[in-house]
Amino acid sequence: MDIGFIGLGEMGGAMVGNLLKAGHTVRVWNRTAAKAQALAAAGARIVGTPGEAFAGDAVLSMLADDAALREVIDAKLLDHAQPGLVHVNMATISVELAETLAHAHAGRGLHYVAAPVLGRPDAAQAAKLTIMAAGAAEAIDRVQPLFDVIGQKTWRVGAVPQQANVMKLAANFMLASAVESLGEAAALLDGYGVAMRDFLDVVTGGPFPGPVYAGYGGMIAQRRYEPALFKARLGLKDVRLALAAADAAATPMPLASVLRDSLLEAVAHGDGERDFAVLGKVAARRAGRG
Amino acid sequence: MDIGFIGLGEMGGAMVGNLLKAGHTVRVWNRTAAKAQALAAAGARIVGTPGEAFAGDAVLSMLADDAALREVIDAKLLDHAQPGLVHVNMATISVELAETLAHAHAGRGLHYVAAPVLGRPDAAQAAKLTIMAAGAAEAIDRVQPLFDVIGQKTWRVGAVPQQANVMKLAANFMLASAVESLGEAAALLDGYGVAMRDFLDVVTGGPFPGPVYAGYGGMIAQRRYEPALFKARLGLKDVRLALAAADAAATPMPLASVLRDSLLEAVAHGDGERDFAVLGKVAARRAGRG
Amino acid sequence: MDIGFIGLGEMGGAMVGNLLKAGHTVRVWNRTAAKAQALAAAGARIVGTPGEAFAGDAVLSMLADDAALREVIDAKLLDHAQPGLVHVNMATISVELAETLAHAHAGRGLHYVAAPVLGRPDAAQAAKLTIMAAGAAEAIDRVQPLFDVIGQKTWRVGAVPQQANVMKLAANFMLASAVESLGEAAALLDGYGVAMRDFLDVVTGGPFPGPVYAGYGGMIAQRRYEPALFKARLGLKDVRLALAAADAAATPMPLASVLRDSLLEAVAHGDGERDFAVLGKVAARRAGRG
Amino acid sequence: MDIGFIGLGEMGGAMVGNLLKAGHTVRVWNRTAAKAQALAAAGARIVGTPGEAFAGDAVLSMLADDAALREVIDAKLLDHAQPGLVHVNMATISVELAETLAHAHAGRGLHYVAAPVLGRPDAAQAAKLTIMAAGAAEAIDRVQPLFDVIGQKTWRVGAVPQQANVMKLAANFMLASAVESLGEAAALLDGYGVAMRDFLDVVTGGPFPGPVYAGYGGMIAQRRYEPALFKARLGLKDVRLALAAADAAATPMPLASVLRDSLLEAVAHGDGERDFAVLGKVAARRAGRG
Repeated sequence: MDIGFIGLGEMGGAMVGNLLKAGHTVRVWNRTAAKAQALAAAGARIVGTPGEAFAGDAVLSMLADDAALREVIDAKLLDHAQPGLVHVNMATISVELAETLAHAHAGRGLHYVAAPVLGRPDAAQAAKLTIMAAGAAEAIDRVQPLFDVIGQKTWRVGAVPQQANVMKLAANFMLASAVESLGEAAALLDGYGVAMRDFLDVVTGGPFPGPVYAGYGGMIAQRRYEPALFKARLGLKDVRLALAAADAAATPMPLASVLRDSLLEAVAHGDGERDFAVLGKVAARRAGRG
Repeated sequence: MDIGFIGLGEMGGAMVGNLLKAGHTVRVWNRTAAKAQALAAAGARIVGTPGEAFAGDAVLSMLADDAALREVIDAKLLDHAQPGLVHVNMATISVELAETLAHAHAGRGLHYVAAPVLGRPDAAQAAKLTIMAAGAAEAIDRVQPLFDVIGQKTWRVGAVPQQANVMKLAANFMLASAVESLGEAAALLDGYGVAMRDFLDVVTGGPFPGPVYAGYGGMIAQRRYEPALFKARLGLKDVRLALAAADAAATPMPLASVLRDSLLEAVAHGDGERDFAVLGKVAARRAGRG
Repeated sequence: MDIGFIGLGEMGGAMVGNLLKAGHTVRVWNRTAAKAQALAAAGARIVGTPGEAFAGDAVLSMLADDAALREVIDAKLLDHAQPGLVHVNMATISVELAETLAHAHAGRGLHYVAAPVLGRPDAAQAAKLTIMAAGAAEAIDRVQPLFDVIGQKTWRVGAVPQQANVMKLAANFMLASAVESLGEAAALLDGYGVAMRDFLDVVTGGPFPGPVYAGYGGMIAQRRYEPALFKARLGLKDVRLALAAADAAATPMPLASVLRDSLLEAVAHGDGERDFAVLGKVAARRAGRG
Repeated sequence: MDIGFIGLGEMGGAMVGNLLKAGHTVRVWNRTAAKAQALAAAGARIVGTPGEAFAGDAVLSMLADDAALREVIDAKLLDHAQPGLVHVNMATISVELAETLAHAHAGRGLHYVAAPVLGRPDAAQAAKLTIMAAGAAEAIDRVQPLFDVIGQKTWRVGAVPQQANVMKLAANFMLASAVESLGEAAALLDGYGVAMRDFLDVVTGGPFPGPVYAGYGGMIAQRRYEPALFKARLGLKDVRLALAAADAAATPMPLASVLRDSLLEAVAHGDGERDFAVLGKVAARRAGRG
C-alpha cells in the first residue's frame, strides 16, 4: 500500500521500519527532520510537510501528545485531504481530543480510526505490539494489513473511535496501580526489615506472573530508576487523561486520584524523567526512609 | 513425625489430609468437633483439648483470626507445653499478635515459627501452597519436612517471625489493589460503553497474565460475585491488618486507605460475604451505575 | 466613571445595581438580553455587542466560566480596545486562562486586573463582597473607587493577576473541605445514633463559629439540599480548577482529590444542581444509609 | 461533694484546682506522685491507690489514653467500688473501650458517664471547657454541679455513654480536617508566590472566623510548629480512634484516611511532638518545598 506516516519517535520509527520491510511505500514526516533521515536508508520517502504525508491509501500518525496533535493535524490539513482517506491515530491521547478529531474527519468525508497500542519500543521493533482499534469496521478492514505488519494482535473494541482511547487509558491506569501497590508494599516491608527482593520472588512466582510486577518491582527492589522504561512524567500524563475521561463520564476513581498525587510528588522532587517505578521512592519518602 | 494440629477449617483440614497421607501421626483439635470427626476416617487422632494437641515433635495451628488465636493459644496452654516444642502458626494474623506470641513462646523455651501461606483451599488440598516461613533457622529446619508435604515451595523470609506475617499482609494488599484497579477500570470503561470482557482479554493476554486478573476481572465483567473465592469481609480484615502494621512502622499507604474505604463500603451495603470482586460493584455505584 | 460591564448573572446584576446607585455610567452587555433589560430601569445603558461595553474608563466582567470567557473576550475584542483601558475580571476562572488573558492584554497595551470575590448574591446586593485583587498597582488604583462601591473590603494580593485567582480557588477549596468534613462527621455520628443537630450546636458554639459550618452543617443535619446556596456542580468546577492550578505547580493536594471524587459522585447521582451540602448525602450513601 | 479524681495531667490538674476552689473535697491519685503534691497545697487530699480515689459521691478520671485507662480502671478496682457510685470518664478514648467500660460498670451496679471535653489546658484552668456528657440522666444530674464548676457549658448528647466519645472524636476529626485544608491551601498558594499570611487575613476575616483557622493557620504561615497546642502524635491518635469508630459502624471516611496518612507522614519525619499544624510542612514537602 501507499501510505503516509506522521511522527517518527521511537515508537513511530520502529513501526515504519516494519512497514517498509513488508514492502509498503511509506511517505514520512517528522517535525525534526533528522529522525526522518535515518529511515530514508531503509526506503522511506521523506516529505517536507504533514500535508504530503496525509495522502495515499491511508495515513498513520504517532505524535507525542494532545498538543503535538492539535498543532499538526489541524483544520487546514484535513480540508486538503482526499475524501475517503483513512487516518489511523495510534497515539495515546485524551478522549476529548479523540472525539473532536472523529467529528472533524467525519465532517470532511475522511475516516478516523483510533488504534493506540500496548507495548514499548522494543515490542514495536519486534512487531509485537498489541493494537486496540476502534472506528468504522470497513475503515479498520482497509488498514488491517498494516496492523498485521506492526503488531501481533489487533483487538477491535468498538465502532466509536474514542472507545479505543478509553481502553488504552484504562490499561495504563492499571499499570500505574500495580506500580503504586509495589511501591507501598516495599515501604511496608522495609519497615520490618523484609527484603523486597524476597517478596518479589514469592509473588511473581505465584499470584503475579508476567513482566509488569517483575520489571517495575525489580527496579523498586534495587532503588534504581534508570534507564526509564516508562517515565514518571508520561505516567502522570496518562493518569491525568484517565481522570479527565472519568470526570467527563461522572465516574469517581479514588485509586487514580492517589496515583495522580503520588506521581505529582515524584515530579515535584525532580524524578519526572525517571522510570515511574519512582513511586517506590515516593512511598519510602512518606515513611521518612526516602 | 508425631504432631498436633489446631484449627480444622477448609485450609487446616486440607493440610491435615496431606500430612496423614505422608504418614505422619496427627493429633487434631477443633472448637467444633464435627470437623475433626471427618478427619478421623483418614487416620487423624482426635483430642479433646488444645493442650493435648500442643505436644509432640511439633504443632501446627491454622485458626481464623487474632481473636480465635488469643482464645485458644493462651498463657495456660503455653505454660504446660514441653520446652523445645516447635509451634508453627500458619494463620494470617496481625503483626502485633505475632510479636506478642513470639515473646510468649521464647520466654518459655518454646520455638515459634510464623508460616502463613498463599493459596486457597483448592491449592491446600493439592499440596500446592506457597509457604512464607520466618523464625529461628533450626526451628524451621525441624518442620521443613512438614512444609514439603503441604506446600510446593517454602520461602524463608527472616529470623523474626512477624516478618512472615508482614509479607503475607503485603501480598494480600497487592491482591486487593489489583481488584480495586480492575473495578475502577470497569467503571471507566462502562462510562464509554466499552465491554469489560474485551478489555480483560486484552490485558490478560498482555501485561497482566495469571489467575488474579483473569479471575477477579471475570467476576467483575459478569457482575457475579458468588461463589466467593475471597470474601470482601476477609479482604477488609487483611487490609486493616496491613494498615495496622504500616501504622506501627510509621508508613503511610494511601492506596491501602482507599482499599479500606472501598471494602468498608461494600460491607456497609451488605456485600461482606460476597467475593471481594464486589469492589467492582462499589466503583459502579459511585458512578451512579451500581 | 464611565464603565462597561459584561455578564449580568445574579452576581453581575447586583454589582451593576450598586455601581448605578453610586452614580457611575454603566454600559451593560449580556448574552441573553432579558437580564440586561431589567437593569435598564435602574439606569444601565444596554449595548448590543461586547465590544461596545469593552470601552470607557474601565470595564468589569463577570462571566460564568472559562468557556464563556473564551468566547466573549476573544482576540478580536481585545484588538479593538483602546490602549490603556483597565479590564477587571471578577469571575472565578482557571489560573491557566488568567495567565493567558494577562499576556493577551499586556501585548495590546491593555491593563488586566484579576479581582475574584468572596460572597454570594445576597452579599453582592448588599455591597458586602470581599474582593481579592491582583495586577499592576496603578491599574488597581484606578478601579479602586468601583471596588469600594461593590465590596466591603479589597485585599491586594499581588502584582501578577493569576495570584488572585489562586487565592480564590484556595478559599473555595477550604470551603468544600469544611463541607466534606461536616458530611463525614454526620455519617459517623449517625452510625451511633447521635443527632447531627446536637453536634452542630456544640461545634458552632465552640471551635467553628461563623456561617459556613452553621449553614452547610444545618442543611446536612436536615438532609435538605435546596435551595442551593452553592451548587455541587459549581463546587466541583472550582475543585477541578484548584487541582489544575496545583498540578501546574507540581503540588499534590490529597484532600482536594477526595473532594473531587465525592462531588463527582454527587453529580453522578443527579445532585449536581443541589447545594454542595449533598456531600453529606454522599457520605451517608457510602455507609449504606444514603 | 466528696469526690475522687484520677489522672492529674495538665487537664486533670486544672479541673481539680477549680473543684477545690468551689469547696469540694477531692481525693486525688496520679501514677507519678509529684503532680499530686502540687495540688496538696491547694487542698487536695492525696491517696496512695486508685481504689481510694474511686469512692465517695462521685469519681472523675482524666487518663491519657486507652492503655492508661485499662491499666488503672481494671476489674479489681471496679469489684471493690461501692454500688451506686458515679464514675465520670472525661478522657478521649476509643468507642470500643467506652462500651466495654459501660458494661463493666453496669454489671456491678456502678454508674458510668462519658464526659469528654473540648478545650485546651488554658480553657480548663479558666473553667471554660465545653463538656459533652452521655449516660443515664439521673447519673449526669448528680454530677452536674461538678460540671458547672469545671466547664462553661454541658451538652447532654445521649443516654449511651459512647455517644459522647463519638461526638468528641467527630469534633477532633473536623479540627484535623481544617488544619489539613489549611496546609494544602498554603502549599498551593506557595506554588504561586502568594503569601499565606494574606490569604489567612482574607478567610479569617470572612468565611472562617474563630481561633482554629487563625491559630493553626498562623503557625503554618510562619512555618513555626512549637510550642505545640495539639501535638501531631495526639492528633494522629484521635484520627485513628475516629477511623476505628467509623469502621465498627461500617462508615467510610475518606477525608479521615487522608488525615491519617498525612499525620503518619509527619510522625515518620520526626514531627510527632510538634503541633499538628505540621500538616502544612507535610503538604509543602509533598510539593518538593518542605
